[in-house]
Amino acid sequence: MTASNSSVHPVFERRESEARSYCRSFDTTFTSASGSEMTDSTGKTYIDFLAGCSSLNYGHNDPDMKTALIEHISNDGIAHGLDMYTDTKAAFLETFEEKILKPRGMDHKVMMVGPTGTNAVEAAMKLARKVTGRSNVIAFTNGFHGMTMGALAATGNAGKRGGAGMDLHGVTRMPFEGAFGDNIDTLSLIEQMLDNPSSGVDAPAAFLLEPVQGEGGLNAASKEWLEGIGRLAKKHGALLILDDIQAGIGRCGTFFSFEEMDVQPDLIPLAKSLSGMGLPFAALLIRPQYDIWKPAEHNGTFRGNNHAFVTARVAIEKFWSDDQFQKDIARRGEIVKAGLQQIADMVPGATLKGRGMMRGVDVGSGDVAGAICARAFEKGLIIETSGAEDEVVKILAPLTTPDDVLQKGIDILTSAAAETLETTKIAAE
Amino acid sequence: MTASNSSVHPVFERRESEARSYCRSFDTTFTSASGSEMTDSTGKTYIDFLAGCSSLNYGHNDPDMKTALIEHISNDGIAHGLDMYTDTKAAFLETFEEKILKPRGMDHKVMMVGPTGTNAVEAAMKLARKVTGRSNVIAFTNGFHGMTMGALAATGNAGKRGGAGMDLHGVTRMPFEGAFGDNIDTLSLIEQMLDNPSSGVDAPAAFLLEPVQGEGGLNAASKEWLEGIGRLAKKHGALLILDDIQAGIGRCGTFFSFEEMDVQPDLIPLAKSLSGMGLPFAALLIRPQYDIWKPAEHNGTFRGNNHAFVTARVAIEKFWSDDQFQKDIARRGEIVKAGLQQIADMVPGATLKGRGMMRGVDVGSGDVAGAICARAFEKGLIIETSGAEDEVVKILAPLTTPDDVLQKGIDILTSAAAETLETTKIAAE
Amino acid sequence: MTASNSSVHPVFERRESEARSYCRSFDTTFTSASGSEMTDSTGKTYIDFLAGCSSLNYGHNDPDMKTALIEHISNDGIAHGLDMYTDTKAAFLETFEEKILKPRGMDHKVMMVGPTGTNAVEAAMKLARKVTGRSNVIAFTNGFHGMTMGALAATGNAGKRGGAGMDLHGVTRMPFEGAFGDNIDTLSLIEQMLDNPSSGVDAPAAFLLEPVQGEGGLNAASKEWLEGIGRLAKKHGALLILDDIQAGIGRCGTFFSFEEMDVQPDLIPLAKSLSGMGLPFAALLIRPQYDIWKPAEHNGTFRGNNHAFVTARVAIEKFWSDDQFQKDIARRGEIVKAGLQQIADMVPGATLKGRGMMRGVDVGSGDVAGAICARAFEKGLIIETSGAEDEVVKILAPLTTPDDVLQKGIDILTSAAAETLETTKIAAE
Amino acid sequence: MTASNSSVHPVFERRESEARSYCRSFDTTFTSASGSEMTDSTGKTYIDFLAGCSSLNYGHNDPDMKTALIEHISNDGIAHGLDMYTDTKAAFLETFEEKILKPRGMDHKVMMVGPTGTNAVEAAMKLARKVTGRSNVIAFTNGFHGMTMGALAATGNAGKRGGAGMDLHGVTRMPFEGAFGDNIDTLSLIEQMLDNPSSGVDAPAAFLLEPVQGEGGLNAASKEWLEGIGRLAKKHGALLILDDIQAGIGRCGTFFSFEEMDVQPDLIPLAKSLSGMGLPFAALLIRPQYDIWKPAEHNGTFRGNNHAFVTARVAIEKFWSDDQFQKDIARRGEIVKAGLQQIADMVPGATLKGRGMMRGVDVGSGDVAGAICARAFEKGLIIETSGAEDEVVKILAPLTTPDDVLQKGIDILTSAAAETLETTKIAAE
Repeated sequence: MTASNSSVHPVFERRESEARSYCRSFDTTFTSASGSEMTDSTGKTYIDFLAGCSSLNYGHNDPDMKTALIEHISNDGIAHGLDMYTDTKAAFLETFEEKILKPRGMDHKVMMVGPTGTNAVEAAMKLARKVTGRSNVIAFTNGFHGMTMGALAATGNAGKRGGAGMDLHGVTRMPFEGAFGDNIDTLSLIEQMLDNPSSGVDAPAAFLLEPVQGEGGLNAASKEWLEGIGRLAKKHGALLILDDIQAGIGRCGTFFSFEEMDVQPDLIPLAKSLSGMGLPFAALLIRPQYDIWKPAEHNGTFRGNNHAFVTARVAIEKFWSDDQFQKDIARRGEIVKAGLQQIADMVPGATLKGRGMMRGVDVGSGDVAGAICARAFEKGLIIETSGAEDEVVKILAPLTTPDDVLQKGIDILTSAAAETLETTKIAAE
Repeated sequence: MTASNSSVHPVFERRESEARSYCRSFDTTFTSASGSEMTDSTGKTYIDFLAGCSSLNYGHNDPDMKTALIEHISNDGIAHGLDMYTDTKAAFLETFEEKILKPRGMDHKVMMVGPTGTNAVEAAMKLARKVTGRSNVIAFTNGFHGMTMGALAATGNAGKRGGAGMDLHGVTRMPFEGAFGDNIDTLSLIEQMLDNPSSGVDAPAAFLLEPVQGEGGLNAASKEWLEGIGRLAKKHGALLILDDIQAGIGRCGTFFSFEEMDVQPDLIPLAKSLSGMGLPFAALLIRPQYDIWKPAEHNGTFRGNNHAFVTARVAIEKFWSDDQFQKDIARRGEIVKAGLQQIADMVPGATLKGRGMMRGVDVGSGDVAGAICARAFEKGLIIETSGAEDEVVKILAPLTTPDDVLQKGIDILTSAAAETLETTKIAAE
Repeated sequence: MTASNSSVHPVFERRESEARSYCRSFDTTFTSASGSEMTDSTGKTYIDFLAGCSSLNYGHNDPDMKTALIEHISNDGIAHGLDMYTDTKAAFLETFEEKILKPRGMDHKVMMVGPTGTNAVEAAMKLARKVTGRSNVIAFTNGFHGMTMGALAATGNAGKRGGAGMDLHGVTRMPFEGAFGDNIDTLSLIEQMLDNPSSGVDAPAAFLLEPVQGEGGLNAASKEWLEGIGRLAKKHGALLILDDIQAGIGRCGTFFSFEEMDVQPDLIPLAKSLSGMGLPFAALLIRPQYDIWKPAEHNGTFRGNNHAFVTARVAIEKFWSDDQFQKDIARRGEIVKAGLQQIADMVPGATLKGRGMMRGVDVGSGDVAGAICARAFEKGLIIETSGAEDEVVKILAPLTTPDDVLQKGIDILTSAAAETLETTKIAAE
Repeated sequence: MTASNSSVHPVFERRESEARSYCRSFDTTFTSASGSEMTDSTGKTYIDFLAGCSSLNYGHNDPDMKTALIEHISNDGIAHGLDMYTDTKAAFLETFEEKILKPRGMDHKVMMVGPTGTNAVEAAMKLARKVTGRSNVIAFTNGFHGMTMGALAATGNAGKRGGAGMDLHGVTRMPFEGAFGDNIDTLSLIEQMLDNPSSGVDAPAAFLLEPVQGEGGLNAASKEWLEGIGRLAKKHGALLILDDIQAGIGRCGTFFSFEEMDVQPDLIPLAKSLSGMGLPFAALLIRPQYDIWKPAEHNGTFRGNNHAFVTARVAIEKFWSDDQFQKDIARRGEIVKAGLQQIADMVPGATLKGRGMMRGVDVGSGDVAGAICARAFEKGLIIETSGAEDEVVKILAPLTTPDDVLQKGIDILTSAAAETLETTKIAAE
């Protein structure tokens, strides 16, 4: 657990809280980053297949975003303005409306929340309860929605939940698609629970779920299942909250992860890649009829990060004005899939997970997956695991990663996997 | 409620959630800001006595911070790195250690939390519960700690609490100093409640309070009372959490608001002005013996905003390397106090509130206070109210405001007050 | 809903709360009862197939219990003694130990709780939480455990839950055997939920369930399923609480309902027929290693009803000194089953429910079941429905009902069913 | 803690749960009781100054109640009838209406709840929440309302609360009259908390309190204070619940403890002495406009104990048909007060507590009070302590105790006190 790498400054060990985590896996000091590569203080470069956990879908330091942001700062553009009206907020909203909402037939209002995904989720849960007058939010096995008390109640991970130090309230847990294996239709189970007036499951305020579970093992809900949840929500007077914080903003191939499904989410928490450049920024999309907030009923000092408005606008204009980016993601997703298949072929029982450029391979063991990632890092690739037991090697490369760099990263990964599995095999013998 | 001002873009009304608030008071579109002044799209400038609710203690777009941030961006410095080690984080930590902690004899660890004050408070509450094995956090009348479910439980405001849509848990409410008037020693009441094993108040995990209550009416705890709370916490095995999000970072005259008191807070949530430039950034200071987090037990995507590390470092170096800044704050605090006294003299029963450069005047009525602020805005001053009934006109000018600008703002305010009170008097007659 | 029957005293309508319920179905005034029959103020007699919801397993006013109780009262025996030691308590405990516990190889301690089933359940839930240091009690669909806030949280019925007026805490709901139809093995689902560290189901303090669900539709857990739950509880460090309030005390053929299963319940709430004569009395059986209560940590004024000790002792001596009673129950259970089969044969899709003398027929509709019971009452039979939709006609005759009386009651029931179904058929045509 | 007395049957130690409590103080086996005296298995008689914690206000085995009950049983009167209409229930309701409600100008409905005080309190809390749509019940320091989860949340005692094994919800604690000494007007503090919209105290569903706190140290609310609470409840739209379980049924001199105050409680939980003879019985009185229960929305197997209806009716007819009993209580209350004054005179700083025949003396130390009671028991007097630290010696003699027996008991007590204090003094020297 100690930062043994000589490139790591001792101040971290001395002064940063034990809560720090990613830095323990990647124990070097990073100094710059561009596109899909990060450089550390020794000059070594790494291909980044983590991308800030999907916060850097457009890569590091996109030149157009940089230029716009530097210009904004140079001109004394507003850096912080609480939730006052600013020209950059107007420009962002207009662009978001024009390029994202309108083409998709959506008329959601945009709520600027505190600049974290968990804050967007908290706002969604509060609003759903306010709208319905019910408190029970249905969340799912392996779901991850954040670490503040409201969102944490909806998060499945036992370690994270344990950090609360007290009981968590207001959430009922249901099985995600596939939670009980392929032969059990969890949608039907959920429906039976809700239809039974003596099931003990209180009438729901909302269904809260990720179309693809980012931390929970890249479980991708099928079109049929997600649409079924949508129908159930409507039938039981509950709002549908699709948490697109990790799966959205192009990660699954389209701007929203659910575009190919016939669902109308009432509330959509967004964060991570929303700013385009990795700046803190989050928002909640709200169907207009549910935008019943009173002024400041949910607020926060940093809602409406004006630097992020600048870069988010550039990102949308640059990547979502035509369908080229979606085509690129589709092609690159296939490259990723092929690479992961190579690893799956090495491990008996391994399965591919996810979709678009949000994919991984379940190697059946957290130890093995962790060892593969550690070895890959030594070889210059930043990559992490996912899943309840950390059993999935997960690729979250920037969506903008050039095909050759993508392939290079995959080659590192497959070679790390091969070596790891060889070692494991030898150890077992 | 509508944005009637012609300078306001219609996209806000059309697309931004009804939760928006400050923009309703200041209905113009801001385009740039520098020092203590903001400029709108019509070219009109405003003196800023709100300063992002104390997030801009060093003013807007400080030139040294701008320069450093632009250089960082130009050089492809890390924008987003999760909680990985970066050179900018190391530099921030070293500076914070050297200039802030060491001179004050503090050895707290620094926990990078999600970049919002509420997240720092949530982390503090979770940690206090984890450390003590108790769930009951004692919070105070008129306290404000944030809007996510854990922190919201500790927030007193009924409107904010109502937004939760469900019961809030884990907090017992106690009266702040002065809550029952000058003749009741609330510290003694609290002690009696805690000493009585049949009081029904469960053993506390922590006392959570603001040394000066920012949203609750600028109630400033006295040295004696705050030290008494510190003793009570120790006596009952509870942690002391001093929320310095609004009152800290120089606002009350010293870096921390409690420096002149003999207390050792175990946990200190910081946010707002921590980044120096208004960028989203928050941290929790933790006494080392309580830093028992497991890795990632509380985490978040945007913890460790590298842009903020850059500007926060510059802010500390620039303003906290010697005692000049504190002298400036002290002097300007007196200017503010004298200005508020002028208003107090106009209103029978009005009282001055707060300390340092966190001051206001309680005019006894939210309507009157609101009218004064609205009229001030027309005259080119951005200023807001505070308090349970919004009855306090609150000055949160940048600490760096030149004395003449400060006086100019105060002149606007006193003239707005005089006009408002004249109108009120006429209406009453 | 009004008491229209002329035999009903107007004071009830005028003065008794709207919460009253059974009296609405059986709107006459009862004046005496003996064995399996009740008599009303007009002299009409009714066969009782409800038996105080299984509180009168030995019938009304058993002559031996009456004699013993009258003698006790005549002799100024203790009526109320809080939980002081009395000769009647000693005699009850000795008899219970000798005739019930020892022959079954049980060494449970006996806790006298407030004289209601819900109080025994509350004590069990509290103790399980205290023993394990966990708060999460796993309860089941269609479970019924009482109406006070702790037990109500474990009760499934939406109407009952709604009466709480606030959220209920501390319980996770799981599907009982058969809750998802015959083809879904709910035991496996529960195991998967508990084994998955990211399921969001917190580590359980206890599993709380009825071996046969009395109010929930006479769902009888199989030997395999119940033993599986026992294994799961052990595996996950949870206590097994078998609520035998309605299913126990001979109702299912043996003193405890689970005697033929290889389970060792840690905690067993008992009430209803425990006193033998329908007097308020409840107890919690506790495996000795878990009897970690501090004195009075759970208490109550009426724990230890001395009148009930007298009759409970007589009941045990009279009915449980040899195996004759069990043989009688077995034989009568078959009579009941045969009678219910007659009804099932009249209704397409109807299914038999329950076991022992706790049986019913699911006629697929609460309206039909209710109509059958109403018509039966007109014909002199007291009988009620059960189930989430009240769709089960439930026979809870005294276990002591002579075979001919039992048959007579069944004949009334089948005739009521035939007439009801005929009417229904005609209406449908 | 062991039952060392040779008169105590070993089955208790072997088989009864460690939760047992009073029997530890009074370690002998009682066999009969009559009037104000109990007899143990060795033939020794004790004067009873505990009276089942006020459950035996009319003494043990009142001859008229005995006769009526024996006759009822002999005639096969209904013992258990769920909540069906019975002649005994009608007779009870008519008598209660005629002798209790009407003369006091009350038109409350009577709700038969599970036969425990805690169940009546749970019903009251649920109903207040249902009526107001709010969950927050305001309870008081040193209050005791029961041990099931809803009522326990309102109970102040830390040991009892700790038995819950989890957090308790839905209650805010306020200081009872005198909780902060004589110079602090707690009513004013409560009013300030409720009037402040940022106090963090949510709008109340109800105020729940005992006019005289039985377990909390015999704190008797003054007429002014209690009426003030009544006004506050009305002002804030909350129901007033006066828990008269221990203080009512004549204990304080009138049937209800609050008759001399100008308050109209909306809900009144009753239990303990309601049955007259110590049989389990409880009821909730409900002002008609709040009787909005749906049938069975709160229910319970033993609500409506028919044996208790018989004795309760006799008790009311015998003792409340004229004012003789009230005169007797008044006279005897003075005898008790004079006796306690004798003890108070022995202990510096001791104070008298309570009113009517619910009185005690605070000797300033639980150890001393306990020692006095233990010594009194040796001398043939059953008596217990009360208060947060068990510092009050409490006399709860049957209200029917003949004056000479009352005086004899007091003589034992004063002599026990004198001896104890002498021993204590010697030990201190």
